[in-house]
Amino acid sequence: MALHAMRKARGCRSVIRALHKGPEVAPTSQKDSMERVFSGIQPTGILHLGNYLGAIESWVKLQDEYDTVLYSIVDLHSLTVPQDPTVLQQSILDMTAALLACGINPEKSILFQQSQVSEHQLSWILTCMVRLPRLQHLHQWKVKTAQQKHHGMMGLLTYPVLQAADILSYKSTHVPVGEDQVQHMELVQDLAQSFNKKYGQFFPVPQSILTSMKKVKSLRDPSAKMSKSDPDRLATVRITDSPEEIVTKFRKAVTDFTSEVTYDPARREGVSNLVAIHAAVTGLSVEEVVHRSIGIDTAHYKRVVAEAVIEKFAPIKNEIEKLKMDKQYLEKVLHTGSAKAKELAYPVIQEVKKLVGIL
Amino acid sequence: MALHAMRKARGCRSVIRALHKGPEVAPTSQKDSMERVFSGIQPTGILHLGNYLGAIESWVKLQDEYDTVLYSIVDLHSLTVPQDPTVLQQSILDMTAALLACGINPEKSILFQQSQVSEHQLSWILTCMVRLPRLQHLHQWKVKTAQQKHHGMMGLLTYPVLQAADILSYKSTHVPVGEDQVQHMELVQDLAQSFNKKYGQFFPVPQSILTSMKKVKSLRDPSAKMSKSDPDRLATVRITDSPEEIVTKFRKAVTDFTSEVTYDPARREGVSNLVAIHAAVTGLSVEEVVHRSIGIDTAHYKRVVAEAVIEKFAPIKNEIEKLKMDKQYLEKVLHTGSAKAKELAYPVIQEVKKLVGIL
Repeated sequence: MALHAMRKARGCRSVIRALHKGPEVAPTSQKDSMERVFSGIQPTGILHLGNYLGAIESWVKLQDEYDTVLYSIVDLHSLTVPQDPTVLQQSILDMTAALLACGINPEKSILFQQSQVSEHQLSWILTCMVRLPRLQHLHQWKVKTAQQKHHGMMGLLTYPVLQAADILSYKSTHVPVGEDQVQHMELVQDLAQSFNKKYGQFFPVPQSILTSMKKVKSLRDPSAKMSKSDPDRLATVRITDSPEEIVTKFRKAVTDFTSEVTYDPARREGVSNLVAIHAAVTGLSVEEVVHRSIGIDTAHYKRVVAEAVIEKFAPIKNEIEKLKMDKQYLEKVLHTGSAKAKELAYPVIQEVKKLVGIL
Repeated sequence: MALHAMRKARGCRSVIRALHKGPEVAPTSQKDSMERVFSGIQPTGILHLGNYLGAIESWVKLQDEYDTVLYSIVDLHSLTVPQDPTVLQQSILDMTAALLACGINPEKSILFQQSQVSEHQLSWILTCMVRLPRLQHLHQWKVKTAQQKHHGMMGLLTYPVLQAADILSYKSTHVPVGEDQVQHMELVQDLAQSFNKKYGQFFPVPQSILTSMKKVKSLRDPSAKMSKSDPDRLATVRITDSPEEIVTKFRKAVTDFTSEVTYDPARREGVSNLVAIHAAVTGLSVEEVVHRSIGIDTAHYKRVVAEAVIEKFAPIKNEIEKLKMDKQYLEKVLHTGSAKAKELAYPVIQEVKKLVGIL
């Protein structure tokens, strides 16, 4: 599965904002009113604890911090690897339900389906501005194309350009990203600057909203991050897992032979991951969590963390189940969001076409 | 300049139809009504004798031979190499004027601007079905990327996929192509078949309409074909050249030291090119042209051919000048054509999106 640029992101006004290369954002005079946050998530797979704590929770916060916030269900990116059409179609609605249940509010943000906004000719224009070695140099391409089944797939090579078009179509100024996407954001920034250099100042150069959030690790291999495509089902806690499944997954979580609960990510990856998850879902500090666990052994502690996760996810899980019953509502949300997104993208693309000389 | 797939084509129902790989066209029951011809030309550069005799003349004929004929001014393909926006914009209208003046009739065929039909999400879907080595293997990519200034430009690598999307968006069944585009047509056919294999019989596998037409050669180097991007201005006769320019270009045409006019392309490339041009513009056979030239030396014969070309081009040149005065009319033609093209492409793309699972 191709990771989408902005999936594991978290950010708010108070976190570090890394501005890569160049101070240009939007013209200062209209800076605030022009601020636009863009992020996307692939519809395939089910939201898990890592997505939730790493990205979606911060997406919910960003809705209150920026006037214009766009969240895209990037179905075109899912196509970079083979998909079953029926599953994909269902996944789009399921992801919509999950995002809404997590607190994405279509009154506050524009939640839409990427392929319904057909203003992606920008993607072709940007493709004509980049060279093959630049894309071959990207880390994710190297990792993905090394896999036999994905070897050389063009979609995996060029999707960072489609990503750039997604972001720039809305003249986005801010993009919450995880560390693994910094390289792709540099490409977006380079493309915006190349375009501006050739055709005159037009695109704001989007800033990354980087987060200091620690990644949630796999329960089975705490040196790897939690991933929805992990072949070991026990590694990943899905937002839709039953309480029994969650208890089992935490019970089988890999820890070490020390029974005490401490936070020491360098030497005790497994138990530290549990502590970090526990702190994140309860809103307590790591120190507080450790303090409260004095005298509890890790076997018992796993049960405590599982209960905390179940408690955090229960209302979300209920809400997802309710929303999934109302297909029409989900479709309406996406449809309305896509119409709003088009409204923003249309004038941008028309202007781009004029600048390039094809309108 | 990236050569567009279907530029140097000529075909009619009587010429060779090469069906590469596989017998599938449209379902037999509705074969005739489903036949659709698609071809495209880049707007950059001015039509020349080679384009005219090699492609446009046959485009005019095809209008009467098929019910649905689409001719696209492929501006997005022009972007594969850097373009001056103002020049590009003007070129689109100029090419429209030239095609109309040559006999493309917007009542008989759909003449439109590629970028105005935004149904090109198909291009992304096809990108996800092809591998990098397949595109790197294409002859035109190898030639173009060998040039320092175009080295590695992604647009040049992937434009055959955009071409495939152009053709398949309209469920085209027939594509007039020159020999240099046979490899790209094989890619189109492979993509159509891969799609059909995965999602069920949907696209007709487009047939090439190959032509036995000899290519018009450069006047300065009769071993090369006449090209609008030839750096030697004398090599190429443009449809808008003045009579004086045409006379000069033919006077300076490279021939050999034999003064007699004969047709022997293997041993007398230069004079044979003149004979071929002469025959093509007058509609006479090569034998007839040679017979009529007995006793004339090549110096005099160059003047005769120049006169024939001037006579052929005079009405076209007048018409171009008249049409170029009426910018509104040209814009209306393109606008109407694009609306018609969209009407054909829209249901195809909607169906594709359903099949793929994103609708």
